[in-house]
Amino acid sequence: MSTIKSYIEENQARFLDELFVLLRTPSISSLKEHAPDMQRCADQLVEALISAGVDRAQVYPTAGHPVVFGEKIIDPSFPTVLIYGHYDVQPVDPLNLWDSPPFEPQIRDGAIYARGANDDKGQLFMHIKALEYMLLTQKLTCNIKCLFEGEEEIGSANLSAWVSDHVDMLACDTILVSDTTMLGENIPSINCGMRGLAYVEVEVTGPNKDLHSGHYGGAVANPINVLCRMITSLIDSKGRVTVEGFYDDVVELSAEDRAMLARAPFDEEHYKKSIGVKEVEGEEGYSSLERTGIRPCLDVNGIWGGYTGEGAKTVIASKAFAKISMRLVPNQDNKKVARLFAEHFTRIAPLGVQVKVTPHHGGQGFLTPISSPVYKAASQAIHEVYGIEPVPSRGGGSIPILAELQDILGVSPLLMGFGLERDTIHSPNESYLISQFTKGIESIVKFFEYYPV
Amino acid sequence: MSTIKSYIEENQARFLDELFVLLRTPSISSLKEHAPDMQRCADQLVEALISAGVDRAQVYPTAGHPVVFGEKIIDPSFPTVLIYGHYDVQPVDPLNLWDSPPFEPQIRDGAIYARGANDDKGQLFMHIKALEYMLLTQKLTCNIKCLFEGEEEIGSANLSAWVSDHVDMLACDTILVSDTTMLGENIPSINCGMRGLAYVEVEVTGPNKDLHSGHYGGAVANPINVLCRMITSLIDSKGRVTVEGFYDDVVELSAEDRAMLARAPFDEEHYKKSIGVKEVEGEEGYSSLERTGIRPCLDVNGIWGGYTGEGAKTVIASKAFAKISMRLVPNQDNKKVARLFAEHFTRIAPLGVQVKVTPHHGGQGFLTPISSPVYKAASQAIHEVYGIEPVPSRGGGSIPILAELQDILGVSPLLMGFGLERDTIHSPNESYLISQFTKGIESIVKFFEYYPV
Repeated sequence: MSTIKSYIEENQARFLDELFVLLRTPSISSLKEHAPDMQRCADQLVEALISAGVDRAQVYPTAGHPVVFGEKIIDPSFPTVLIYGHYDVQPVDPLNLWDSPPFEPQIRDGAIYARGANDDKGQLFMHIKALEYMLLTQKLTCNIKCLFEGEEEIGSANLSAWVSDHVDMLACDTILVSDTTMLGENIPSINCGMRGLAYVEVEVTGPNKDLHSGHYGGAVANPINVLCRMITSLIDSKGRVTVEGFYDDVVELSAEDRAMLARAPFDEEHYKKSIGVKEVEGEEGYSSLERTGIRPCLDVNGIWGGYTGEGAKTVIASKAFAKISMRLVPNQDNKKVARLFAEHFTRIAPLGVQVKVTPHHGGQGFLTPISSPVYKAASQAIHEVYGIEPVPSRGGGSIPILAELQDILGVSPLLMGFGLERDTIHSPNESYLISQFTKGIESIVKFFEYYPV
Repeated sequence: MSTIKSYIEENQARFLDELFVLLRTPSISSLKEHAPDMQRCADQLVEALISAGVDRAQVYPTAGHPVVFGEKIIDPSFPTVLIYGHYDVQPVDPLNLWDSPPFEPQIRDGAIYARGANDDKGQLFMHIKALEYMLLTQKLTCNIKCLFEGEEEIGSANLSAWVSDHVDMLACDTILVSDTTMLGENIPSINCGMRGLAYVEVEVTGPNKDLHSGHYGGAVANPINVLCRMITSLIDSKGRVTVEGFYDDVVELSAEDRAMLARAPFDEEHYKKSIGVKEVEGEEGYSSLERTGIRPCLDVNGIWGGYTGEGAKTVIASKAFAKISMRLVPNQDNKKVARLFAEHFTRIAPLGVQVKVTPHHGGQGFLTPISSPVYKAASQAIHEVYGIEPVPSRGGGSIPILAELQDILGVSPLLMGFGLERDTIHSPNESYLISQFTKGIESIVKFFEYYPV
């Protein structure tokens, strides 16, 4: 039988064809009209798992979008790895900025362009193809369980309940996830911690109806101006979040820990150039990597109010809205922070307006110990495939459900992600390098060679 | 022949039927797709003028929406009144807040509900019906010219050029306009001054693409946060606009002038209740009426950026936008203020973003002398119809083109408006009281009895 390297070479065209079937399914979890696509995508994954040779695979309904579960039990006495991934994707707007339609995957310059190409269909599919090879070659010395959900991008609202109901079925020794990035194509890294997330929507109401800005302008609190003022006050001149109690549970890293993380190569000029900005901005006293890795922050993700059409309309809107998210570090509780935010935001509202704060999803941050045997297996695998020892890194993003899985199943997750910054996930022209896709498959197969260690 | 009062009573149903034809035409000047409706509405007005008995009426094309002109020359040696009005209307969004479709006029509780019911089709149509009566009864002792434009709501961009090209045809002694409000149904008033307007659109660009807020949050300037910060800085803690040079040309009113304007009845509790706010807000040291009548201000009329759909999206938008207008008082030049704003806004932008400021339409403020004979004629007419002497007032809104007409034709406009605050023009459920419509017709006919004085 061929090596994994040659197996990938021989089958690459087929792998991509199969992945494209998934990518053509517009599984946008946040939009109700895509519910049938969610079901279709789940069915496609069951088929893919069965083709790969698992014992059984099945779609499980939830109160939201369905969960896919499949397993291959080699020997019940062997250790078990639970692979987690998600088949839902982010919305695609603004559509006009895509160079090719988001759900018609295209290959350009060695990369796959499509919504979900990386996040997370492309990365999830690497595991299915690694599994296919390991089952074909009978190389597997552990049991595999696969858990693919359809609500990661909207906060995995229904997964923890489902997991709690299926604790025995999901019992495992390791959770393996590919849903993160590496520092660079030639700077392999393993994510050893991620931030948590508290996400809220705010509504500021001033007058009980839209007003003519000529007749009322200057004499009433304009909800848009007020919302801007309130948002501005949420971050002080040192870049710190002003929500009362926000930093209470934040653990300051030791100088040693900060030095270790600073080993990750980072070129600020390149960073600025890659996103087209002249200057970076953030909390005083921390580097850019620290600002996204070990420090919490607050960002407005969306804002709207008043007249946003063509031309001019002289109106004072009755309401203004914003979506605001806070990235949290381990030890900050997302529910507590969302509550602190709501209290603070209500407290600072001027008399002329009323505010409403609605929490969206949230999630806890978490840490993976670098000293754990699974981290070491992953490190060896990647070292072998890339020829370079991977760097431990901290991810700024959140996979809220992972912290919950850790809680419920009592097992730490290992984040072996193969995405790159250039993939612009969540944005127009999301992509995934084919070389990362194939190296990912190879690395996963190698990981299982060193596992269980 | 009957009096104007009985003529209105006999013909009211027909008047409303005829007005409804105009109201059913969705002449939204700011939306390109309504261009054919603009032409149709102009044709309807020509028909209405001819039915009323004018010598000639005609649609004139412009670079934008057409102008309607009609005239009745009784005797070239008689003085001439130019009636100005506009047949274009504001957009109708948010559509879901309308109790009945905006372009299907309905009568409820003695009021007409439709977009344009008041602003300005309803008020413009009073003049056509007054004209019909005066021509039928041969009561007119002056010449009448009617100028109806289709771009008032978008800044009358093409009217001044057209007026400049037709100065002889438009030659007149008085400009009469009904496009403003009275202080109340039982507090008749005549508008003796209006604010000017400078309207701009701003675009703030941070990163060159949308970014994942987890990966970048905390380390880059978020354009929405920055826009909020910049907007907030435009108004200081005393409610004053911080744009450098903004107040340079503002003339402070004398204590006497302020006392005269303070005679207009104003109930702050009622005012707050009518718009559903607990507290008013504005420039320190001025009353609510002064804040809208004699003081300039700055309002955000619309804001948008990032994800504004259902649910949550963890994105840092590349761009954020706002529409910002400044109401100006007489002596402030709108072009100068727009320029000062652009310079200021560009200057205060932090390094992490780039800004673009695009001016929309603008207009100068103006004043009508209370001592003028035409003001006195209007005052007598309204006194007779309402049984109460009208109060002179200052309007917060803008009819930019009136200041330009004044410049080009060398004649002051007289603002005899019959709208009420309750009509919520520019908002959902715009309405116009039938009693104001009929009293308006009556007042106009009386005005011409006292004109020329």
